[in-house]
Amino acid sequence: MLQGFHYPRTPGGIASLNQAPPWHYSSDFLAIEFWADPAQVAALLPPGLAPDTQANGRAVGYFYDWQFTGEHDEFLDPARYQYREFFILVDALLDGQPVSYCPYIFVDNDAALARGWSQGYPKRLGQVFQTRLHAAPSKAAPQLVAGARFAGSMSANGQRLAEGVVTLAQELTNPAALEQRPVVNLLYTPRLAAGQHDQPAVNELVMNVPRDVHIAQAWVGQGTLRLPAAAGEEMSALAPLRCGTGIRASMSYIVDDLRTVKPLKPTA
Amino acid sequence: MLQGFHYPRTPGGIASLNQAPPWHYSSDFLAIEFWADPAQVAALLPPGLAPDTQANGRAVGYFYDWQFTGEHDEFLDPARYQYREFFILVDALLDGQPVSYCPYIFVDNDAALARGWSQGYPKRLGQVFQTRLHAAPSKAAPQLVAGARFAGSMSANGQRLAEGVVTLAQELTNPAALEQRPVVNLLYTPRLAAGQHDQPAVNELVMNVPRDVHIAQAWVGQGTLRLPAAAGEEMSALAPLRCGTGIRASMSYIVDDLRTVKPLKPTA
Amino acid sequence: MLQGFHYPRTPGGIASLNQAPPWHYSSDFLAIEFWADPAQVAALLPPGLAPDTQANGRAVGYFYDWQFTGEHDEFLDPARYQYREFFILVDALLDGQPVSYCPYIFVDNDAALARGWSQGYPKRLGQVFQTRLHAAPSKAAPQLVAGARFAGSMSANGQRLAEGVVTLAQELTNPAALEQRPVVNLLYTPRLAAGQHDQPAVNELVMNVPRDVHIAQAWVGQGTLRLPAAAGEEMSALAPLRCGTGIRASMSYIVDDLRTVKPLKPTA
Amino acid sequence: MLQGFHYPRTPGGIASLNQAPPWHYSSDFLAIEFWADPAQVAALLPPGLAPDTQANGRAVGYFYDWQFTGEHDEFLDPARYQYREFFILVDALLDGQPVSYCPYIFVDNDAALARGWSQGYPKRLGQVFQTRLHAAPSKAAPQLVAGARFAGSMSANGQRLAEGVVTLAQELTNPAALEQRPVVNLLYTPRLAAGQHDQPAVNELVMNVPRDVHIAQAWVGQGTLRLPAAAGEEMSALAPLRCGTGIRASMSYIVDDLRTVKPLKPTA
Repeated sequence: MLQGFHYPRTPGGIASLNQAPPWHYSSDFLAIEFWADPAQVAALLPPGLAPDTQANGRAVGYFYDWQFTGEHDEFLDPARYQYREFFILVDALLDGQPVSYCPYIFVDNDAALARGWSQGYPKRLGQVFQTRLHAAPSKAAPQLVAGARFAGSMSANGQRLAEGVVTLAQELTNPAALEQRPVVNLLYTPRLAAGQHDQPAVNELVMNVPRDVHIAQAWVGQGTLRLPAAAGEEMSALAPLRCGTGIRASMSYIVDDLRTVKPLKPTA
Repeated sequence: MLQGFHYPRTPGGIASLNQAPPWHYSSDFLAIEFWADPAQVAALLPPGLAPDTQANGRAVGYFYDWQFTGEHDEFLDPARYQYREFFILVDALLDGQPVSYCPYIFVDNDAALARGWSQGYPKRLGQVFQTRLHAAPSKAAPQLVAGARFAGSMSANGQRLAEGVVTLAQELTNPAALEQRPVVNLLYTPRLAAGQHDQPAVNELVMNVPRDVHIAQAWVGQGTLRLPAAAGEEMSALAPLRCGTGIRASMSYIVDDLRTVKPLKPTA
Repeated sequence: MLQGFHYPRTPGGIASLNQAPPWHYSSDFLAIEFWADPAQVAALLPPGLAPDTQANGRAVGYFYDWQFTGEHDEFLDPARYQYREFFILVDALLDGQPVSYCPYIFVDNDAALARGWSQGYPKRLGQVFQTRLHAAPSKAAPQLVAGARFAGSMSANGQRLAEGVVTLAQELTNPAALEQRPVVNLLYTPRLAAGQHDQPAVNELVMNVPRDVHIAQAWVGQGTLRLPAAAGEEMSALAPLRCGTGIRASMSYIVDDLRTVKPLKPTA
Repeated sequence: MLQGFHYPRTPGGIASLNQAPPWHYSSDFLAIEFWADPAQVAALLPPGLAPDTQANGRAVGYFYDWQFTGEHDEFLDPARYQYREFFILVDALLDGQPVSYCPYIFVDNDAALARGWSQGYPKRLGQVFQTRLHAAPSKAAPQLVAGARFAGSMSANGQRLAEGVVTLAQELTNPAALEQRPVVNLLYTPRLAAGQHDQPAVNELVMNVPRDVHIAQAWVGQGTLRLPAAAGEEMSALAPLRCGTGIRASMSYIVDDLRTVKPLKPTA
């Protein structure tokens, strides 16, 4: 009897990339609101999602420092159970309902890659960094005060693909203000069999259903984001026309479910 | 209309991990035959495959330096289109037919990870190294002569998981001697929806169908392999009881197909 | 006129590994006290330092997550201005004065390597990880409470060389209790000229003179450390015979000086 | 008695970054001739070297895949004894003698960094890749034929800093044509003691004296090189105005000496 939620399937499930949920996550993150060319946002949407024309190309870029664990204190193996992530969510409509869709996401950990693909997050590998907050005062680390700056960057295959800065203005007294649209992704598993390369085994829109979300130490201010052009890449098509709110906060949640909201045709 | 065989699905398919096949591969590799505890080999086999009792725990460990490309000379971006790999194939039977099954495989590239999962290779990330052959004579590089030694190593999450050495004895005049059993893998895509964690969306045995296989510069001799124990890992259960033939060669092939040989029940 | 404190020396000094001090540092760290075989500690000491026989092999292992900057908010480029570190300090005597000596230290950043060598820290590259503290509550991240555990690990060249855990017991009300012995290192720059390989250009004992040291959020408890044996390595000779106090804290300081305390003979 | 040519100095010298020479090297490399703005080349030269005005800004960019060893077959630990390198040599004059000077060089290995600094090579860490040659024919790997293309790239801290391509035209029948000017570097070890930050402990011009140089499989053709601008970097000041000969070859040599050709004042 083989174990393991993801590959490899093994007798003990220990060597597997991931065991079955629940998956616990803890993080520090930066969020930077921006507006891209609405036509470029629309061009990225999968079948079943429509452009949110009122959003006018609105999107958010995120830098996350993650720590994760299963039920057995796996966070005590930090070489395996930490990762860093950059992703973009664009505003869209699902049957008229405002949702977010993730067209690009990069992580530096294979377990996170596998988890992402099982949730419709189209993860690639990247090198992601984010300015740290430390308790001891120093010119080397910003504090949680107005005017403090936190930066993030992401590179893949040796090319810089994203750079952002959040300048803090004030602590957020009402965390509900950070409430997000639900994230609806494309769950897509292709088939390699000859003649079926465009007939995926799995092809559906799915809604993420995180639970037990906690936000702490949230500060808001101004964000700036750059998405430089790079050879062999397309993300710069979303290069910000203008930027908006920036957030720096800590967040935790649990993942153990996913909701199929719309099956798509075999050939997307 | 979104493009890209693997995630992310984009307007141009350029930023995708992989475009549709054919996928061209070129490599230098080491192969080391060994015999593991037959019970441990049997414990790794998925439903539908039976132990090859006559093989008595026979397996082969491989270290590969790969270069790959699509149709557009992508090998000219070596930061993205090279990778290194270690994997094990164990002897097994599919309805009485001798086949190989891959229980463990590690690569250092996300495109290779995605391609692997689409072929049933249960890839994780690892750091893999292999002694290089260079044309200029030096104590720093073995030549293709009897007694020359080529070594490989693989580590994941900071732990050394495999070490091997091939000592050359003679050039292989008959490449057919390297002919392998067909590789039959478990193609397995889990579902994250609550209540379905053990009801995979895809669950079948698949046979790899490489074509245009070329072997060159093949030398054979003696191999030795170590699979050290490591925390959070299981591969050392296959630790060699004895080792056999070692090979050092160059190989190329094309992948553009996969054959389903046996559907498995929704709950594996 | 070339600029840059370290290589490369350039017109602007911008591309240099480091500009001239002051260098500002901020961190979270774990410290784990242990006792090694006193003979093994003595065998590591350079000329001019004597074993601290009363210390009986006492040493401390440290895991650091660092952020650093010059005078121009370089911490806003976190891909370049963060690093992780593991090192060991052993108790020793300098002319009868209790000091610490660093025989082994590993970082993941070249600027940190260069700074280290200029202070007598014998840095090599390694992959270092440490459990993170995040403000949002989660099973994925320990809080600052009694019983919480923080772990660290370090690997080099694919081999695990150190693993440690600190279990918190109580907050430290008196930071002076963390006061350390001064660190005295071997500043050693070899010469490659034929016949001079054992006649270093620089060979002296130096004392580190950090200033503006701040400690915050300090908790103490119990520490455990492992230094596994590995091929081509020697650090496991210091494998703990028993472990003592564990600390988890945040620390910042400034480096802009170094004091030569004892010149050594050309041939060490 | 401590051992080890470089840090750390240890009882056995095994854990040291490098033991004493001789150091044996083996490689495949690409070389790309180019002409930069002569004023930018001149601005990079250290005291004691003069611009080679007849060279008119001539320089060469190199991508190397290295394997190295000491006297004990260390190449059998490929995770530690391989590295990749990019560097630039610019034409200059030493007291009227044509020489090459290395203003920028990047490697992915700490032992190579230490060896470089001991020879005046101002190494930083970078990620370097080069198209591989494999014996088995494939679209994924160029062969040694006219028109074949080999590419290289280098990134540091997540930014792409160099990209080059060599297109083969013909095999080089006369390896002497590859003979280079001697390499003269700045050997420079700064002092951290307060008040001495601009009074280096070592400050001299040194000439590299490689021996037993072997060139094999050399092909020449056309080279192209790009040095993109990047934040916090200066190498793009040498961006090619035009490119010249490209070479693809294998090379080996031995290093065990260095010649001081000109002491410089304490303050460079």
